[in-house]
Amino acid sequence: MQKKKHGSIGLVEPRYFTFAGPPDGFTLDGGESLGPVTLAYEMYGELNEDRTNAVLVLHALTGDAHAAGFHKGQKAPGWWHNMIGPGLAFDTEKYCVICSNVLGGCAGSTGPSSINPGTHRPWGLDFPIVTIRDMVNAQKRLLGHLGIDRVLAVVGGSMGGMQALEWVVLYPDMVASAILIATTWEHTPQQIAFNEAGRQALMADPNWNDGDYYGKRLPEKGLSVARMIGHITYMSDTSMSEKFGRRTKDGAKRFKFGPEFEVENYLHYRGHDFVNRFDPNSYLYITRAADYFSMANYSPAVKFLAGIKTKLLVIAFSGDWLYPPYQSQNIVKICRAAGIEARCHILRSHYGHDAFLVEFEEQTRLYRRFLKKVHDEALGPQGPPTLIKSFYG
Amino acid sequence: MQKKKHGSIGLVEPRYFTFAGPPDGFTLDGGESLGPVTLAYEMYGELNEDRTNAVLVLHALTGDAHAAGFHKGQKAPGWWHNMIGPGLAFDTEKYCVICSNVLGGCAGSTGPSSINPGTHRPWGLDFPIVTIRDMVNAQKRLLGHLGIDRVLAVVGGSMGGMQALEWVVLYPDMVASAILIATTWEHTPQQIAFNEAGRQALMADPNWNDGDYYGKRLPEKGLSVARMIGHITYMSDTSMSEKFGRRTKDGAKRFKFGPEFEVENYLHYRGHDFVNRFDPNSYLYITRAADYFSMANYSPAVKFLAGIKTKLLVIAFSGDWLYPPYQSQNIVKICRAAGIEARCHILRSHYGHDAFLVEFEEQTRLYRRFLKKVHDEALGPQGPPTLIKSFYG
Repeated sequence: MQKKKHGSIGLVEPRYFTFAGPPDGFTLDGGESLGPVTLAYEMYGELNEDRTNAVLVLHALTGDAHAAGFHKGQKAPGWWHNMIGPGLAFDTEKYCVICSNVLGGCAGSTGPSSINPGTHRPWGLDFPIVTIRDMVNAQKRLLGHLGIDRVLAVVGGSMGGMQALEWVVLYPDMVASAILIATTWEHTPQQIAFNEAGRQALMADPNWNDGDYYGKRLPEKGLSVARMIGHITYMSDTSMSEKFGRRTKDGAKRFKFGPEFEVENYLHYRGHDFVNRFDPNSYLYITRAADYFSMANYSPAVKFLAGIKTKLLVIAFSGDWLYPPYQSQNIVKICRAAGIEARCHILRSHYGHDAFLVEFEEQTRLYRRFLKKVHDEALGPQGPPTLIKSFYG
Repeated sequence: MQKKKHGSIGLVEPRYFTFAGPPDGFTLDGGESLGPVTLAYEMYGELNEDRTNAVLVLHALTGDAHAAGFHKGQKAPGWWHNMIGPGLAFDTEKYCVICSNVLGGCAGSTGPSSINPGTHRPWGLDFPIVTIRDMVNAQKRLLGHLGIDRVLAVVGGSMGGMQALEWVVLYPDMVASAILIATTWEHTPQQIAFNEAGRQALMADPNWNDGDYYGKRLPEKGLSVARMIGHITYMSDTSMSEKFGRRTKDGAKRFKFGPEFEVENYLHYRGHDFVNRFDPNSYLYITRAADYFSMANYSPAVKFLAGIKTKLLVIAFSGDWLYPPYQSQNIVKICRAAGIEARCHILRSHYGHDAFLVEFEEQTRLYRRFLKKVHDEALGPQGPPTLIKSFYG
């Protein structure tokens, strides 16, 4: 199925797993039952016979299951294509990497734009609130479906790191290790505030129409502004100055307050681009899930974390002001106090929060070494005796 | 006119100065002619006989002329009331402090909500683009009207600091000193980006109606979102965590994505409050003026700054990530290279950009000492021989 070239996964196809159909349902954190639930996912590399070489990659706010390789007919590769592939940080010659679109998302998984089986119309705001824990519980069902009892690592940046933390606390026996990147122990008021400004921008758009815009005009302007705010927080003062300076594009100026500076044109482009690929209601649900995220709910931490054998590698970037390094250091401090093996590395970068998506070299070095150690401890340095073709290939 | 109490100016009244009536007009940076132009202003303390004890205070983005004291019937004092008054940093027993609302503003000065004499309707987007330099040139006319040839200091934070920098370069002989607070040598792409997100939020509101909303429904939602974005950037991660934490106000939650966290309720309050006091079009014009601001236009700086005798005191706050301290240090570096006497102090504060409005103690100490030195050098330690009642009191 996959044409491989050096360092690249080649062509990949999305897969789908549906569970909790009637009469079962999937019980959410808030007590409501949802079903059936579909998760879109992708797999890169092959599961070994014992299904012990899996690595679960968890995506950020607006990411999706397409982490690596290319979809047929599309030029853009997956969002972490420089990290997942033969010989890369997550070496698909050794590991089987799995990435699924989160519950509540809009890239194949069940979310507010999915059809509500009760009304045969899109859920809209009738979709129940989902939490990071719900996302993790849905992923657990996916692993069960794939016959995987334990993964070598759960790996995620930003909201992906929040999911990884929940994995560690909820199902420590299922995760040998976790790589937490540019994330936090709990969403802070500043992080909530930026999300709220984005949500308010979206909901101020009359086309949002209380979430009932399917088949009608999209709240393009509102969602675009929300995305602009997001992109400012993903970059940094330095990276913006280097990339745009105060250069202007006079040709693009259409009226008195049209975009004039290059940085404005960039934000407009990013805003409009987002409208084409993301469901506005999913934006509300997923940012809210991030806001609700607080490991401090597991209190006292020392008690909840006691006895957990999962090894943690915690990474932050010096120029990330949205999820600043002190928040990663805080995770390590709390986990170590509870006896968990945890290390923190702060990588120098001026790329801001986006660094985890663009700073490959140092991440690759760290993750390869960490995973090899986890792998060797779990399976022995020779690895499993034979590789079989992916069961689900 | 002013009932004084210790440390407070007491009651004050706004004043108005109108100039450039037909056929004269006021020539703007962009070449257009505007007139008549009105500036709203306030004066605290009394001008001495020689009119040599004036201090010109310049306000930030959404400030106004009401810097100190109380307006009759209003409970809230001016925006810098802890800094301006008898015995305070800007001691009105010694100095005569003047503050005017900027050109383009909406608190008494001519701006896009003023009546266009050509149409007898509010200007709206027909109002010409104004720059920081235009604001300064209008202030110069005001000083001329007051018979002031030279001020002891121009003082401003944020956009007020940009005006002060323009004063120093345009009219160095008129300013003995300048106090530049939490400001920058030029607006950076990140600063522009935040402004642009706010403008786009505002202009996305259909009630904005291309700026033609006077007498109709205001673009409340859009302006409110713009203000929310602003307030996030004025605070800091630390100050938000201290002030709000992750506390929630369940009672305030009206629907699924209503404000729930205290920080959200605060932003909503700030957003709605702003709508009652600020003209949306003024928000566009003034943020644009800030974006256009770049002292790098005076290039090479060394040549433009050569021979300037104005003394600079440059202040930044450690926790200000919107106008970070390196930008103040940069001002001092450039000015010193050109032979200007300039000192930089970085004050420890976790209040973010708002620090200049709330950290009084250290600012007071620094400004009193600096002003005394400037005053004594200009007028001798005894000051002028007699004080007369304000000419315009």
